[in-house]
Amino acid sequence: MRKIAGLLLVITLTFACGTGPTPAPAPTTPAQPATAADPLPSWNDSGSKKAIVEFVGRVTRQDGPDFVPVSERIATFDNDGTLWSEKPVPFQLMFALDRVKAMAPQHPEWNSKPPFAAVLKGDMQGLAATGEKGILGIVAATHTGMTTDEFTQAVQDWITTAKHPKTGRLYTEMVYQPMLELLSYLRANGFKTFIVSGGGVEFMRPWTERVYGIPPEQVVGSAGKMKLEVRDGKPVLVKLPELDFVDEKEGKPVGIQSRIGRRPIAAFGNSDGDMQMLEWATAGPGARFALFVHHDDVAREFAYDRADKLQQFNKGWDEAVARGWTVVSMKDDWKTIYPGDRK
Amino acid sequence: MRKIAGLLLVITLTFACGTGPTPAPAPTTPAQPATAADPLPSWNDSGSKKAIVEFVGRVTRQDGPDFVPVSERIATFDNDGTLWSEKPVPFQLMFALDRVKAMAPQHPEWNSKPPFAAVLKGDMQGLAATGEKGILGIVAATHTGMTTDEFTQAVQDWITTAKHPKTGRLYTEMVYQPMLELLSYLRANGFKTFIVSGGGVEFMRPWTERVYGIPPEQVVGSAGKMKLEVRDGKPVLVKLPELDFVDEKEGKPVGIQSRIGRRPIAAFGNSDGDMQMLEWATAGPGARFALFVHHDDVAREFAYDRADKLQQFNKGWDEAVARGWTVVSMKDDWKTIYPGDRK
Repeated sequence: MRKIAGLLLVITLTFACGTGPTPAPAPTTPAQPATAADPLPSWNDSGSKKAIVEFVGRVTRQDGPDFVPVSERIATFDNDGTLWSEKPVPFQLMFALDRVKAMAPQHPEWNSKPPFAAVLKGDMQGLAATGEKGILGIVAATHTGMTTDEFTQAVQDWITTAKHPKTGRLYTEMVYQPMLELLSYLRANGFKTFIVSGGGVEFMRPWTERVYGIPPEQVVGSAGKMKLEVRDGKPVLVKLPELDFVDEKEGKPVGIQSRIGRRPIAAFGNSDGDMQMLEWATAGPGARFALFVHHDDVAREFAYDRADKLQQFNKGWDEAVARGWTVVSMKDDWKTIYPGDRK
Repeated sequence: MRKIAGLLLVITLTFACGTGPTPAPAPTTPAQPATAADPLPSWNDSGSKKAIVEFVGRVTRQDGPDFVPVSERIATFDNDGTLWSEKPVPFQLMFALDRVKAMAPQHPEWNSKPPFAAVLKGDMQGLAATGEKGILGIVAATHTGMTTDEFTQAVQDWITTAKHPKTGRLYTEMVYQPMLELLSYLRANGFKTFIVSGGGVEFMRPWTERVYGIPPEQVVGSAGKMKLEVRDGKPVLVKLPELDFVDEKEGKPVGIQSRIGRRPIAAFGNSDGDMQMLEWATAGPGARFALFVHHDDVAREFAYDRADKLQQFNKGWDEAVARGWTVVSMKDDWKTIYPGDRK
């Protein structure tokens, strides 16, 4: 919990400072579907696309030296910043703050209680001032103490209605069209696609199948402990305010081994928190693929890398260059950012 | 670790006492494959088979009131005693004891060190006499301190060569033919089949795909903590002597929620350790199915239930009767026990 609280504190401070550019306005035209001729139509014909297509060709060519059987075609994707945006703060924090507001009528005492009162007044500076303890309180109040079914319902309600403060879009409309095409392309070539994210697993599972085509059982993420109880004669699982697993940095290979049990042959991330996952994937024998998404598109999304306080892309970038991993320039490699944007 | 050690102590004491009947000799005829006409040929046409077929019909009938979409057709199976035999002791303990023997040349000190010396002399009474501490030492020495790749290799080597002391068969030849047919039947009807076992997940994953058709990523089990290290410039995961998760009793719904993220609509077990899993599965809305395998076939396998010290089937049996769950009589409902046995 401490580690997460520390992270959230940085997040909140960042949010309070209001950094990050304003992305392009909401889309007006529908996304172009991938065609058989080109399964990655939102990707420019640059090196990144060529590297992806070349790798998939190698591992699927039945008589080739790098052929990989379908059962071993495991691909793991980070979520925040890799499959959808993560600025100005990871969207799960927006959920937590919105939950405080939604739960406030049941908690009149929150109007005068430090961290909650600041959230309810929209006073992000005040929230940041409550420090780690305040953030811990927000996380505990919004993510624990309820059953898993109740939490899932809260996520469902939020994800289908809440809008990003700057783009005015649903958060699920801020997924990356080129990555949706990449997921489909890999699956069409026999890959099983997994999410391996530092975000909460229970926050992602309610919507990843609808949005990414990735079912709950293929989502790995950070998690709290749970307890089986019987309520009204029925078993329920109650979410406890105690961390069970942090799926970040060296936690990602552990999450992959403990939840998936196979080493991926391809891994995709966007920050130093994903580096160990990419190292783990590429350390196996045979053909391997590692890709970082580089946020360098200040006009259409956000631009941040080595100096970012939250999602630093620094050591990972150096390693990618040294080892010949693919680094996607959102600006140069992607025709489109979000579904429906014009090319 | 304490909980597991306690369990293993009981296991070892049971083993030392040499209980359990001698099953029939090894098979001479190959197993009959399931036919389109009868997908469950090793099941007698009794109530258990009828209940299974009726349930599958209900949830797959597109225009029926109990139709369940393919994505929600999740079935979870206990392993020990449900998919393969577990007497005289769970086979993972046999692996641990055999590992002590295999590792002994690298540990000359074991010849005179209490728990190991007893194992090396085949002195099960002596091993039991070392108590919880001794068992802990065996588990730690054989299941931790090595990398996950090294452990997987040890399991692979053992499972393809070690023979059961009473039947003389490979352990993977002591899986239940009717359950293999049931797994195939469910999958042919759009179900995703998972193992949710109290056994070690890293002990099962190396062979479940080959033997049951269940891939590693669909195996949930008890697990120890792991640590990412770099050895010879490559990342490895080292197995630590610290428990991470016990997938037994109230742990099974937790394992299902944390690793699978969907509630199964059908669950299969054989002892009180599976009761909470069956309760969890049947507490969801819509058509549900729960089945216990009752070991009542002293001639062809083993007979144990209410009074068993290790794998008690007592509370679960009462609940099954009260709630109308299916209880399979191995003696009456199954034509065949192991693959290749004559009918």
